[in-house]
Amino acid sequence: MYHHGSSSLLMPIFVVVGHKATTSPNFSLEDIPGTSGRLDILCRAVTAAFVVSHGIRKDVLVYLVLLGGDAPKTILLQGESLRHLNPDERTTAALLKKALAIPATERWAMSTSGITVRLGGLPELLQDLKEADLVYLKEDGLDIKKMESTGPAGRTAFILGDHLGMTEEEEELLAQAGARKASLGETSLHADHCIVILNWMLDTNVFIPG
Amino acid sequence: MYHHGSSSLLMPIFVVVGHKATTSPNFSLEDIPGTSGRLDILCRAVTAAFVVSHGIRKDVLVYLVLLGGDAPKTILLQGESLRHLNPDERTTAALLKKALAIPATERWAMSTSGITVRLGGLPELLQDLKEADLVYLKEDGLDIKKMESTGPAGRTAFILGDHLGMTEEEEELLAQAGARKASLGETSLHADHCIVILNWMLDTNVFIPG
Repeated sequence: MYHHGSSSLLMPIFVVVGHKATTSPNFSLEDIPGTSGRLDILCRAVTAAFVVSHGIRKDVLVYLVLLGGDAPKTILLQGESLRHLNPDERTTAALLKKALAIPATERWAMSTSGITVRLGGLPELLQDLKEADLVYLKEDGLDIKKMESTGPAGRTAFILGDHLGMTEEEEELLAQAGARKASLGETSLHADHCIVILNWMLDTNVFIPG
Repeated sequence: MYHHGSSSLLMPIFVVVGHKATTSPNFSLEDIPGTSGRLDILCRAVTAAFVVSHGIRKDVLVYLVLLGGDAPKTILLQGESLRHLNPDERTTAALLKKALAIPATERWAMSTSGITVRLGGLPELLQDLKEADLVYLKEDGLDIKKMESTGPAGRTAFILGDHLGMTEEEEELLAQAGARKASLGETSLHADHCIVILNWMLDTNVFIPG
């Protein structure tokens, strides 16, 4: 496959839905998996999306949809302005902790450089991503290496579940929003590993979405 | 490319060299990157090598070469018997801490199930891997997707550096041992991300080594 010249290709958006992920900063950095509703999964997804040797992928956006509290929250991380992101899990968790500590409303509010937070879950996010080419990663989807381009589209948003997968209701929402279902293969992989592979596919033109 | 029927394909060996990685258990799980000579890099490599959704890759071997102490140590993790490996970094670090606490000699000694340790560094390990097809991952190597099979060989061992890369001396050792130099692309990736991509290539037959 060949690069078709749109800059949108190299600017992927990754959306990860954390079904039990806490919306409160009151979790322990000494036991992230056990106290945060598996926020560790989302931390690793963030690192997978942004971190390369000696740098950050500036053109990447990550939305973390946190559904483990009374009201859903979404955290947005933007590579262009992201600071203090180290490759270790704990540092990332500390950044998310900070973001969860600020009072959230329906408008994006800045936590630290490149990290903003608001109230709202998947339906609100899909509204924001109306212009994007949505690709929902699922084992039983179409082989992503065989997916055809939809022609010039907006940025591609790859949507991934956590260890619980997506609910039927969420799958319905995604279908209504026009998401195409794509698979990386038969082996069921963690979200962060899927993101590593997707970034690599985009880097090396194995897959050209959009 | 097609699967040529050898079971060795699906049993990769990953070798990661940690140039500053501690050989002592006296590091803090509260600050792994800052107190262990970046053992966090090796922890993530372990997770990348073994962890899939709801399981462990049983056919994988990982050798961690730790060069940050007075005498080098090597830790071997074997998927077939590995227990208690969770996807989070801290749990893996705790397992390595245990392995580093037992008295090491030149013979492999068991720490916990599937984890053994001994004294010795890269030269000793390359002796052990004499029957393996060695592939050294380096940005300026041959595109791995274009590498030709060397015909039926032993298991393939992928050799990766840490954030410091390999020294000239180590590259010389690898060349003498017959390692082929292969690249995953121009973007310089962390060792754990390389391992994720290699596992996926083997899963989906994008690359067939050996």
